[in-house]
Amino acid sequence: MKCSIFCIPTASPADLNGLKKLIIDGQINPHEVISVIGKTEGNGCVNDFTRGFSVEVLKNFFESQLHEKVDSKISFVMSGGTEGVLSPHLTVICRSEHGDSTEADRKQKALSVGVARTETILPEYLGRMEQVKMVAAAVQKAMKDAGIDNPQDVHFVQIKCPLLTAPRIKQVKEKNGSVVTEDTYKSMGYSRGASALGVAVALGEIEVSSLRNEDICHSFQYYSNVASTSAGIELMECEIVVFGNSLKASGDLFIEHEVMKDAIDAQAVQQLLEKADGAKVIQVLAKAEADPSGFVRGRRHTMMEDSDINHTRHARAVVGGVIASLVGDPMIYVSGGAEHQGPSGGGPIAAVFRRG
Amino acid sequence: MKCSIFCIPTASPADLNGLKKLIIDGQINPHEVISVIGKTEGNGCVNDFTRGFSVEVLKNFFESQLHEKVDSKISFVMSGGTEGVLSPHLTVICRSEHGDSTEADRKQKALSVGVARTETILPEYLGRMEQVKMVAAAVQKAMKDAGIDNPQDVHFVQIKCPLLTAPRIKQVKEKNGSVVTEDTYKSMGYSRGASALGVAVALGEIEVSSLRNEDICHSFQYYSNVASTSAGIELMECEIVVFGNSLKASGDLFIEHEVMKDAIDAQAVQQLLEKADGAKVIQVLAKAEADPSGFVRGRRHTMMEDSDINHTRHARAVVGGVIASLVGDPMIYVSGGAEHQGPSGGGPIAAVFRRG
Amino acid sequence: MKCSIFCIPTASPADLNGLKKLIIDGQINPHEVISVIGKTEGNGCVNDFTRGFSVEVLKNFFESQLHEKVDSKISFVMSGGTEGVLSPHLTVICRSEHGDSTEADRKQKALSVGVARTETILPEYLGRMEQVKMVAAAVQKAMKDAGIDNPQDVHFVQIKCPLLTAPRIKQVKEKNGSVVTEDTYKSMGYSRGASALGVAVALGEIEVSSLRNEDICHSFQYYSNVASTSAGIELMECEIVVFGNSLKASGDLFIEHEVMKDAIDAQAVQQLLEKADGAKVIQVLAKAEADPSGFVRGRRHTMMEDSDINHTRHARAVVGGVIASLVGDPMIYVSGGAEHQGPSGGGPIAAVFRRG
Amino acid sequence: MKCSIFCIPTASPADLNGLKKLIIDGQINPHEVISVIGKTEGNGCVNDFTRGFSVEVLKNFFESQLHEKVDSKISFVMSGGTEGVLSPHLTVICRSEHGDSTEADRKQKALSVGVARTETILPEYLGRMEQVKMVAAAVQKAMKDAGIDNPQDVHFVQIKCPLLTAPRIKQVKEKNGSVVTEDTYKSMGYSRGASALGVAVALGEIEVSSLRNEDICHSFQYYSNVASTSAGIELMECEIVVFGNSLKASGDLFIEHEVMKDAIDAQAVQQLLEKADGAKVIQVLAKAEADPSGFVRGRRHTMMEDSDINHTRHARAVVGGVIASLVGDPMIYVSGGAEHQGPSGGGPIAAVFRRG
Repeated sequence: MKCSIFCIPTASPADLNGLKKLIIDGQINPHEVISVIGKTEGNGCVNDFTRGFSVEVLKNFFESQLHEKVDSKISFVMSGGTEGVLSPHLTVICRSEHGDSTEADRKQKALSVGVARTETILPEYLGRMEQVKMVAAAVQKAMKDAGIDNPQDVHFVQIKCPLLTAPRIKQVKEKNGSVVTEDTYKSMGYSRGASALGVAVALGEIEVSSLRNEDICHSFQYYSNVASTSAGIELMECEIVVFGNSLKASGDLFIEHEVMKDAIDAQAVQQLLEKADGAKVIQVLAKAEADPSGFVRGRRHTMMEDSDINHTRHARAVVGGVIASLVGDPMIYVSGGAEHQGPSGGGPIAAVFRRG
Repeated sequence: MKCSIFCIPTASPADLNGLKKLIIDGQINPHEVISVIGKTEGNGCVNDFTRGFSVEVLKNFFESQLHEKVDSKISFVMSGGTEGVLSPHLTVICRSEHGDSTEADRKQKALSVGVARTETILPEYLGRMEQVKMVAAAVQKAMKDAGIDNPQDVHFVQIKCPLLTAPRIKQVKEKNGSVVTEDTYKSMGYSRGASALGVAVALGEIEVSSLRNEDICHSFQYYSNVASTSAGIELMECEIVVFGNSLKASGDLFIEHEVMKDAIDAQAVQQLLEKADGAKVIQVLAKAEADPSGFVRGRRHTMMEDSDINHTRHARAVVGGVIASLVGDPMIYVSGGAEHQGPSGGGPIAAVFRRG
Repeated sequence: MKCSIFCIPTASPADLNGLKKLIIDGQINPHEVISVIGKTEGNGCVNDFTRGFSVEVLKNFFESQLHEKVDSKISFVMSGGTEGVLSPHLTVICRSEHGDSTEADRKQKALSVGVARTETILPEYLGRMEQVKMVAAAVQKAMKDAGIDNPQDVHFVQIKCPLLTAPRIKQVKEKNGSVVTEDTYKSMGYSRGASALGVAVALGEIEVSSLRNEDICHSFQYYSNVASTSAGIELMECEIVVFGNSLKASGDLFIEHEVMKDAIDAQAVQQLLEKADGAKVIQVLAKAEADPSGFVRGRRHTMMEDSDINHTRHARAVVGGVIASLVGDPMIYVSGGAEHQGPSGGGPIAAVFRRG
Repeated sequence: MKCSIFCIPTASPADLNGLKKLIIDGQINPHEVISVIGKTEGNGCVNDFTRGFSVEVLKNFFESQLHEKVDSKISFVMSGGTEGVLSPHLTVICRSEHGDSTEADRKQKALSVGVARTETILPEYLGRMEQVKMVAAAVQKAMKDAGIDNPQDVHFVQIKCPLLTAPRIKQVKEKNGSVVTEDTYKSMGYSRGASALGVAVALGEIEVSSLRNEDICHSFQYYSNVASTSAGIELMECEIVVFGNSLKASGDLFIEHEVMKDAIDAQAVQQLLEKADGAKVIQVLAKAEADPSGFVRGRRHTMMEDSDINHTRHARAVVGGVIASLVGDPMIYVSGGAEHQGPSGGGPIAAVFRRG
């Protein structure tokens, strides 16, 4: 197996020109694409349809290329919100089952990516232990798919998960069910949080038995160091993409991670870049959140009390700027809302590098 | 003469508790305050009244302390917008006419601050050469006030300037006059731009004869390396505060500057911090803007096309995050809209340091 | 007793020119002012400081006029948010203890206004039964102050109430207390809801024994037909202004009310205007809210799912437009967030009329 | 010829369920669809991709139904922004070439709809006389298509036109061309204005010889009483749909119009509804704008100075509310930005009625 990654700038959520060019040039084989992770220019919140738009055009395109349904073949994970310098783009992940070398010859682990998805998360399960467990099972499936046995070799787990909308809430209430929250914006946080805890459970970072419904989006001492979850109106199940290093994979790419302790943790970014060991940064993937304490380094911030701009938008702008300033490139993946993803106020950051 | 600087966190635009405590503690003598530069938590745009609110309570407070009008004694310069990690605060600048030592004894230049203000900028003059010239004259007055002869010793010039509002525009049109723009938000840019060019003219960075009305907010090759201008609805004239180093001043503070080439120029920030030469950072003052080209480091950004969030807000979030991540403190002054303040897309940054 | 009402346009939250003119002209006696109810141009949400700004300048002004503290003499109730055509203004309410006639002579009830305020609402009491009961007691005090015995004669009860902020929440949690919500924006709803239920309890619209904490902002079948409550960051207690008609009051003003069943209930507005019976509309006071069901007249609305604009802002724009189009004047008082104020999705509307 | 109209609620910009049901039920023949006019839930401004998303899915759907390209067959005109009570929906317009009766038999004119489109509007032509003339020619083509000779029989002309984006502006400047404005949001106004003047020219409301570039978006005494124009990022030419009554058309539908003098002109709405003469309202189409004078009925409004919410969004919320309150239905078409469409601050309003 060999995994490769292509970062493609986009001129709009529907722009496929860059992708088409790489296919024509023979760099991307559409049959080998297993996931497309993108940043689109919506608000990244409840009424952001740029994610759905992008997925729609990508799906149609790949279906026209592959002449079959791609829902179960390609995992499309769009994260809305290119605040500040963040630049809209697609990260296309390909996997060829034929590597450059045999496993026996390999001395170094190489980038390996696996995918999986859960069943539909019913609106009444969203943000609750049911979602945690469904995600945990799917993460383990994706690890297997990536040829990774040791959780230590997992460096980033990207999950796209659903959210509650007014009609979905109405539906549940009509059958006398209950939802975790009736605030649609807040439901995005619950879904992200439950998904992240699912990752932590799958990787042994947390025991599932120690978690209860009440912990989700409340007990932030529980978190995963590698989970990155993102909620969108356009899907009803969770899509999981596991990134790690494996001897089963060949090629010159590898991935490492660090944890940003807060939104301005330049040191964590620098430590991650030092792991390059001479290799070139290909892509950075990170999570951002406004510190729920209302303070960063002891100073009051106003992100949580801004009724004009949602705090996820503020946080992406900051973390995007901090990372871009050190990496030297604003075309990176920074996604908002880091509930149970890294410590409270911080978040995981991973980088894919290319050797020599 | 001796200048000192106090950075005081605020809990709201009307919060004077920190200031009052420093006065009670004897650290600030209200009679020595010459300027208060603050960050308030509004949107920093046209309908931001937090600046006016803050100035109102500060003025009332100082008048109750000094038992006289303070309009011509203290320059209040509030910049709205604490996006991202930026933390609301006041920077209080004091000047005692009695230094620690005689000028003859001094071997090192120390921080020196001078103030001045223009006459009322008529709405029809705003954003035009009339404003440039009025500001240039006032900057030279402020330099003299600071005891600075050499423009090289000027490291930051903070200006607060007026903007156009619908009623002001109406007024001008009723007497058949013209205004530079009828877009109130855009008028903030013209006012900031003309003020910055006034600084450049005063410091010899640009010849006044080479400038015309059409250059303002268009010919961005003309800029000042030390101007920082900010527009507000609450005033009709320009208030100027010049920061520099002078042998006429005593004390352990000094100021240095750099120019950020773009919003993510971490290198410029680090170069500035290296000028500390062991001294401690007391406060950082910087300007931020969304690159008007629509690109940062060759990557498309979406700040100019975001109809939900003004680009000044995006830019402050990014530059605030970048600087805070390197300085380690989010309670810094970052003001938006850097027309003719540093190169296009970048902006000046200055730091006040305290020697050992 | 005689009550009078003056509607004064303002050019900004700090504009006192109109008020000063009416005082100079002798129309308003500052000693007789008991309340100022205003619309200011902020976002009307958590980080809206225009309300506090306006109250600050009004307070300072009246204190300079009356040479005494006015906190317990004048109730300042500012509602932020002049979306759409709504026009910023102040409604100044005066009460002279000397009427035009003796009570015995009067044949018609006239406008009568009474004021009261609660103790500080502790953050842990906000949005809970404690607040309901404190408000109910204060409403009855205000009725007595207005000389109104019969709850049927009460046509509008305006309340300004506090909200939770990050620091206030932190405070409570540090002493192991709990708050009704940790979402600051949502806390505004809880405070408005509890205050409205307090009115309903005071007027006998609901039995206090039938209410529990869980009903607040959930059981919307409980509501008051005349409550109008508004939350602001600038106060910690509830200020109550009761409007009604009383034989104890003289003058040519009177007040009536109706209940809008939804945001576009033009019929209710017209029914209210018909109660004028030839009298002239002096001022309209109304509440607005986005129907929490997500539907208006069976049609889906998107106000609750808009992450760029809070639903209270949408609702004020709509209801302000509907009423202004029928009254013919956009300088009316429409305040957002009508939890337990009128039926779900609708709200109370009152008008003060002047007889021929 | 016979024209019919179907108003279909949508659950999202990509929701085709209602449309599909009507096709399955045999009410809509996809081969007869000539235009789809919709309201989508974006911000209706520069970065609103909901319009493009909706057009994308509609196009794909119709192409799958008709087995041919539909670009030149169906005019898709999406208007973003469902502020306040406005409800997302599609208005599908069908035209059968076979009427219910022969022209000779007809005594009453019936609804007749014609379509046309311009060539690509080059970015340097946008908002200038070139666009005016191109639109005027296309409107006359659409009238002919509708079988309407007399401009008096035209009651609504819906146009979708392009806007400037940063890349398009860059393009023009690279070849040393000029654009009407470099403010992308403002370009939407110029494009709408030039298109509306094109309608006025086509219908003889204004002589083309009396217009110059400088008049566009400045000389608002020039306007059309029936133009409704809307700008979108997703197209480069103008699409025109002319609505009128014609003896060449059969059926029980007809259309009438009025002009709202301002955003709260309830009287104009009522006059239009009176033209029903017993017929039932099928759909209402209207334009909204914030009065550029800054005043409505002599009262200051704050829509132009709101840096958090674009004035087009405020205006749609108000006009949508006013019309919905009188028509009793919020699923109406209200589009923002009425430059040269009706008098300044007002806008055209049309209604399609069904006879008994």
